[in-house]
Amino acid sequence: MPDSVALQSLKETLGERVRTDEESLYRNSFDGMRLAFAHEADIQVDQPEQIGEVLRLANQYRVPVTTRGAGTSLTGSASPAKGGWVLRLDGLNDLEIDPLNQFAHVGPGVVVNDLQQAAKQEGLFYPPDPSSVRYCTIGGNIACNAGGMRCLKYGVTRDYVVALKGYLPTGESVSWSCDTKKFATGYNVRDLWIGSEGTLGIVTAATLKLIPVPQTTWSLLAAFPSEREALKAVESIIGRRIGPAVLEFLDRPSVRGAEAAFNQPIFDGMPGRSLLLIQLDGSEAEVTTAQQELLEWAKQEAEAFRPAPSPEEAEELWNIRRACSSAMFELGDSKLNEDVVVPIHRQAELIDEVERIRSQHQVAIAVFGHAGDGNLHVNIMHHRDDPAESKRAREALGEVMQSVVDLDGAISGEHGVGLAKSPFLSLQLGEAEIAIMRKIKDAFDPNGILNPGKLFEPYEVWNKKKEIYRFPWDHR
Amino acid sequence: MPDSVALQSLKETLGERVRTDEESLYRNSFDGMRLAFAHEADIQVDQPEQIGEVLRLANQYRVPVTTRGAGTSLTGSASPAKGGWVLRLDGLNDLEIDPLNQFAHVGPGVVVNDLQQAAKQEGLFYPPDPSSVRYCTIGGNIACNAGGMRCLKYGVTRDYVVALKGYLPTGESVSWSCDTKKFATGYNVRDLWIGSEGTLGIVTAATLKLIPVPQTTWSLLAAFPSEREALKAVESIIGRRIGPAVLEFLDRPSVRGAEAAFNQPIFDGMPGRSLLLIQLDGSEAEVTTAQQELLEWAKQEAEAFRPAPSPEEAEELWNIRRACSSAMFELGDSKLNEDVVVPIHRQAELIDEVERIRSQHQVAIAVFGHAGDGNLHVNIMHHRDDPAESKRAREALGEVMQSVVDLDGAISGEHGVGLAKSPFLSLQLGEAEIAIMRKIKDAFDPNGILNPGKLFEPYEVWNKKKEIYRFPWDHR
Repeated sequence: MPDSVALQSLKETLGERVRTDEESLYRNSFDGMRLAFAHEADIQVDQPEQIGEVLRLANQYRVPVTTRGAGTSLTGSASPAKGGWVLRLDGLNDLEIDPLNQFAHVGPGVVVNDLQQAAKQEGLFYPPDPSSVRYCTIGGNIACNAGGMRCLKYGVTRDYVVALKGYLPTGESVSWSCDTKKFATGYNVRDLWIGSEGTLGIVTAATLKLIPVPQTTWSLLAAFPSEREALKAVESIIGRRIGPAVLEFLDRPSVRGAEAAFNQPIFDGMPGRSLLLIQLDGSEAEVTTAQQELLEWAKQEAEAFRPAPSPEEAEELWNIRRACSSAMFELGDSKLNEDVVVPIHRQAELIDEVERIRSQHQVAIAVFGHAGDGNLHVNIMHHRDDPAESKRAREALGEVMQSVVDLDGAISGEHGVGLAKSPFLSLQLGEAEIAIMRKIKDAFDPNGILNPGKLFEPYEVWNKKKEIYRFPWDHR
Repeated sequence: MPDSVALQSLKETLGERVRTDEESLYRNSFDGMRLAFAHEADIQVDQPEQIGEVLRLANQYRVPVTTRGAGTSLTGSASPAKGGWVLRLDGLNDLEIDPLNQFAHVGPGVVVNDLQQAAKQEGLFYPPDPSSVRYCTIGGNIACNAGGMRCLKYGVTRDYVVALKGYLPTGESVSWSCDTKKFATGYNVRDLWIGSEGTLGIVTAATLKLIPVPQTTWSLLAAFPSEREALKAVESIIGRRIGPAVLEFLDRPSVRGAEAAFNQPIFDGMPGRSLLLIQLDGSEAEVTTAQQELLEWAKQEAEAFRPAPSPEEAEELWNIRRACSSAMFELGDSKLNEDVVVPIHRQAELIDEVERIRSQHQVAIAVFGHAGDGNLHVNIMHHRDDPAESKRAREALGEVMQSVVDLDGAISGEHGVGLAKSPFLSLQLGEAEIAIMRKIKDAFDPNGILNPGKLFEPYEVWNKKKEIYRFPWDHR
């Protein structure tokens, strides 16, 4: 097939940075959600100005453009749902730490772990830590307002973004805020861009806030007879204002999976308990105080507990968390991984709802996640080649989403909407809310060329088979 | 003059909540900036639904609507620049603390100090503290993304807003985010509303984040021979990562004013020094450690210093800060109070620029403010009835603004743009940036009825005489 006029112009402008070989097109046709879409070309930029050029052509020829960092998104937000061009930003990876102002200056292609390591060299800390931290890029983290396990104490990506530079969908270069500690001059487009999933603009540089690195950490694992008791104990930790950095929850199905993998119970003689994994951090004095309070809490609330004073012992605890995530695939080869969030005190009700849905629809569901934030990952497992089971999983998913909204929660706490949650957006948002968001999109992108098809267009994800592909960041 | 058709409809709908008496119209015709504008009516709402009704009439009859809390704005953002109706929200003052989730649920009319006191009852803390904290309302704080002295450690209003409910300018009821610790579902309109100075929507309820109240505080005052030395010492505090809650700077003209008022030098035998006022807070252990580090810093960097171990002694230090603000009016009866912000390490350069502008234009300028944030208040004093002096002040103002932008800073760090900085917006923002902000405004408010005339329309503030009026929050 001969090149389209648009593609010809693109190649004239960007030369070898334009890739149309089969391997490149395949690799960039899907993200961590594994829904693949045919598209025309990939563009590997290495200078911000090239983005302006791409966008001008895209508007001229009305070609969809989808930006991509590492492609770790779990919602399809980085996949070219409407074809067109994939703009790869991983080449924009400048990284500079400013120790006085405690800022990092980064390109969107910087891997989050690399940023964290560079900050550490200066005694500084960048807290957001999505589980794909060794692969995902800061551009993707900004696009989805990524979270992770430390949000309870430290907040999400948004809380660390000071200023952004980049391009409007129509190709103009813009800056939002500047490298100062405060800014109150005009509308806050910076925060509108953050979490807009690559639909309102393209970030070419970010200034991020860093904080002093905590001196020390201390971890503890606690077991409970049921999810309800574990989640009530979460409320108790928060009520006591112990202030842990991490407070992770694992339900019994998750734990049973890990125990099967290890071939032994996590607490001797007490198999299949619901678990809480807690980490304190801060100065020696702060951690010492909090540690006493936490041990007191554990004695009163937990069926059993195990502190992990050394980093090696702590690492063992985190291996349990990781094992749960992998072992889940014994329950099915496909996972509907939802990152719902509810108020802290309604998590037990959500677990009750999950129990009802599990038994009513006869599907395997395992729940774990950031209980300190109310942000639980509800994993509905099924076998992709079993249509009846897949249908039941889909129905269960719809009911989970409805339950979350009924519990005054949100259908996404940290992954975003993308394609995955687009069918459920109208459960969360009213007509006026969606209408104004669409108007914002139109104001930024009158030709609708930037990452079209995401968020607002309900996409029936289950009508499309997922690619079978092993990513480097896969747990299993 | 008979009522307009619009006003007749308003009275039919809202009855006695509509006020058109002279006193009400005068009191609501200007805010803390003291530029008065004639308008048709004031509306005192006590139910959120009334706002929807007002907005529907305003759109039908194309009547400007300007919301108002306490009217403490220093930029004219709460004044009815285009006439029409003033919507008073101080009656929407529900206040409830949720100690488990560490949230406050507030109406926009809640006075910030009342919120802080209610939080304290539960051992919780709401850090933002603009100087008008005993009068200003949380609605106004959200509209302007208010700051204050504790931002260095604790951030600004934006950092404490979890969720907002309210009305679009077109009258539809909307909610942005929910009462959860995370939210990643659709565009972040919450943060677009925050700081939009009442032009994109009307807040009727907010959920705010609270944090545990610091156990203790400790303050210190340090003197320096010059502004440059004081500001270099600021960099040294930050470089040492001592992490104070407050780090205030006072230049020599500000200090001389306070000393004249007290009729004695602040440091015996050392009149007219530039000062830093520093406050530590946190747990006993944290404050003890930081205190040692700060005393070490003071010995090395300061010409003289005075710790304030007791709350009473600390209060004395804060009185110096307050006295500077009042004493300034000895230099002129009118103040152009600009809340500019530059990167921490460029504050000394800004002071050099101020020195140049002061001598070149023969105007009195006193500078004090939040040096830990780079957020300095540059106060250009003049006598309103002296046209030549007023003209020089105005020219000086323009040069200060240009200098700030040249130093990679922002023309407003915490007050916002309103009318006051509208002539300078295009120094800060490029054409594409202003164009997209105006498109956002049009998307939200197609009839342009909500707080028109602010931010984007350059208003020649100096062509209008300021009202002579004493507000309860005036320092003098």
